[in-house]
Amino acid sequence: MSVKIALLGCGTVGTAVAKALKAQAKDFTQRVGAELELVGIGVRSVGTPRDPEIDRSLLTEDLDTLATSADIVIELLGGIEPARSLVHKAIESGASVVTGNKALLAEYGPEIYEAAAQANVDVYYEAAVAGAVPVVYGLRESLAGDRVEAVVGILNGTTNFILDEMENNGLSFEEALKLAQDLGYAEADPTADVDGHDAAAKIAILASLAFHTRVSLKDVPTTGIRAITAQNIAEAKEDGFAIKLLGIARRHEHGIELSVEPTMVPLDHPLAGVRGSFNSVVVESVGAGRLMFYGRGAGGAPTASAVLSDVVAGASHRVHGGQAPRELTYGDLKILTPEDGIASYRIDIAVEDRTGVLTQLTGAFADNGVSILAVRQSQVDDESAKLIVTTHAARTASVKSAIEVIEKADYAKCVLQVMRVEGN
Amino acid sequence: MSVKIALLGCGTVGTAVAKALKAQAKDFTQRVGAELELVGIGVRSVGTPRDPEIDRSLLTEDLDTLATSADIVIELLGGIEPARSLVHKAIESGASVVTGNKALLAEYGPEIYEAAAQANVDVYYEAAVAGAVPVVYGLRESLAGDRVEAVVGILNGTTNFILDEMENNGLSFEEALKLAQDLGYAEADPTADVDGHDAAAKIAILASLAFHTRVSLKDVPTTGIRAITAQNIAEAKEDGFAIKLLGIARRHEHGIELSVEPTMVPLDHPLAGVRGSFNSVVVESVGAGRLMFYGRGAGGAPTASAVLSDVVAGASHRVHGGQAPRELTYGDLKILTPEDGIASYRIDIAVEDRTGVLTQLTGAFADNGVSILAVRQSQVDDESAKLIVTTHAARTASVKSAIEVIEKADYAKCVLQVMRVEGN
Repeated sequence: MSVKIALLGCGTVGTAVAKALKAQAKDFTQRVGAELELVGIGVRSVGTPRDPEIDRSLLTEDLDTLATSADIVIELLGGIEPARSLVHKAIESGASVVTGNKALLAEYGPEIYEAAAQANVDVYYEAAVAGAVPVVYGLRESLAGDRVEAVVGILNGTTNFILDEMENNGLSFEEALKLAQDLGYAEADPTADVDGHDAAAKIAILASLAFHTRVSLKDVPTTGIRAITAQNIAEAKEDGFAIKLLGIARRHEHGIELSVEPTMVPLDHPLAGVRGSFNSVVVESVGAGRLMFYGRGAGGAPTASAVLSDVVAGASHRVHGGQAPRELTYGDLKILTPEDGIASYRIDIAVEDRTGVLTQLTGAFADNGVSILAVRQSQVDDESAKLIVTTHAARTASVKSAIEVIEKADYAKCVLQVMRVEGN
Repeated sequence: MSVKIALLGCGTVGTAVAKALKAQAKDFTQRVGAELELVGIGVRSVGTPRDPEIDRSLLTEDLDTLATSADIVIELLGGIEPARSLVHKAIESGASVVTGNKALLAEYGPEIYEAAAQANVDVYYEAAVAGAVPVVYGLRESLAGDRVEAVVGILNGTTNFILDEMENNGLSFEEALKLAQDLGYAEADPTADVDGHDAAAKIAILASLAFHTRVSLKDVPTTGIRAITAQNIAEAKEDGFAIKLLGIARRHEHGIELSVEPTMVPLDHPLAGVRGSFNSVVVESVGAGRLMFYGRGAGGAPTASAVLSDVVAGASHRVHGGQAPRELTYGDLKILTPEDGIASYRIDIAVEDRTGVLTQLTGAFADNGVSILAVRQSQVDDESAKLIVTTHAARTASVKSAIEVIEKADYAKCVLQVMRVEGN
């Protein structure tokens, strides 16, 4: 008996998957209880030069046929089409699907999960979030006996690399981006990474799992890191904070808050120490408390490791029965608007250096129901001072209202920076 | 349809499990697809005062009957007997077993796994290693598509708490142990923790999973932390190292090396920053590279979280078919003797302060095939000096031979400390 595997896509990850299926064939046979047989590799052009270990006789440009000729279909094409159609065809043909396609799932996950449930096949997507870091397993299975309160993570290695270079080597955003591109960490068009869309798709997927509620990409208010300067980072560090692009999904009394934005985290927070292109996800739950998962979030071999674990799980179900956890939507929690989010903020404001300003400014927060954790003054020049205000957790809309009042006040010269703070 | 759950043991973890089964009943029903019905709680004495939320009508002293009256039996008794007999009875009756009993598994795991395979039932034991940290899932399922090279972990929160207090608050071992006992982190008889046996049982379990090879407690050379002084820790810190009690399982060319011993790790290593009673496990694999799992390794609620995830998994298999991964022993790797272990060591030696000593001393290492990474001298007084030698990875037996030669040499006054170094 063998389990037939079809591979759609033969880029870096696909190549690593095909090679590992050969190199580790004996291991996989033992683990699954049957041989994993790679029946085809679907590519756009069979003529393209490839890794010499790829068996060229497996290559085909007929993806439609391949997608309906296997027990397990691995989709590594990326993007929406033809991936979406091929996944549906695979499911209709009775195959289980393993995908690393975060964009597809964050937008069309529910229709795929429903089709899979109807066809009684599995959908696996460990590779779609944080590469080799087993956080999909973590939320879908390891925490199935718990109640998750929050998922907070560094989900994009490219932006973490850029911020890390800016923090530790004083590079500007542009210089760090260039370096990331030169090293192959960033695409020529870095939009998906630096504008936060990649992280937003991932936190949408994780939030769906954590809260048993459908969350899609468009539910996630997203701000990237283009506006962050080396000075922002240096000043934050002086004050004991690192700036990280965090994906956040948190259960509040009235619903789920979602966010992808540059966020200040205390230097002794586990996420502050995540260096380079690594990913890390902190899960806070009622029983387990704070768990952290850390590892390589991208790259051929790490992502292939995640894909292959999913293949082993899917193949084991073919052999021994059983199924992967199905999509659960019973939580059905409300998704809060950005204004209803609840977070702590740090606000830097240039003000006139005269008595009474502090009272007026703190009054503006109090009037809007925002309680202040700390205010610190740093002299800028003879006439103006910089005030650094850190709020307690407050409704985002209330913080915005307070800032609007301050911006209009005669004592305020300029609101220099507003940034979310986590883990204070 | 309901899945019948029997709980053996109602201490801190058992109480947390029973309460969560009630509080999260709706969640679990959704996740499993059937109700989880707690049919009994086996205790030594039904008269003992208990948490008021425990339904006393479920209590029974007839553990034998309870163990054979359920679909899933949760064993939280600890120790070998009656746990071992009850687990076997449960399996024979057709129940799947969830256990947090590391001692039982590290000694009698194979006979239990075999009985379970024969009866076609599951055995789960996430709670036996590192509490809520999902490292059993990690090795058994998330890394099923990869090849693990090493598992290195802080697996005992009590000893990590003690070492942390010694490092950061300058306490002596005795003072730190007393504090741990006062805070409830350490037992009145702290032997299992401070002498490393608890960590040894856990690394034996993890090594079995990582390498698909039977590893038992007695295979793990174990040294505890009683001999560590605050001065050792302070000196290590000055040199850029933390001292941690690490459980180590590593694949070498000729077999698996196992160890539990106080080990120096560079301060920038992820394990060096693990504070207090937290646990952390680093897994190194061919595909994923270095993964880290971090969280609470003990306590009622975190351990209950792990138990309940296993219950959900086991119950799902009852409802939907399928099975947990069975014990795999196909790796069948040789277990290296302590002498055949391969590690880097730091050796502190008091020597006479005269020319030629360094040459003789380094010669002793070279003669035994041990290559040196660094030697540093620190003056002790007018007549003697301290040499700190750090070796490259070398056979433990070779390092020992070199040390024996040095101990007999006239230039050496005393070998002050020999300690393993990881992650250099």
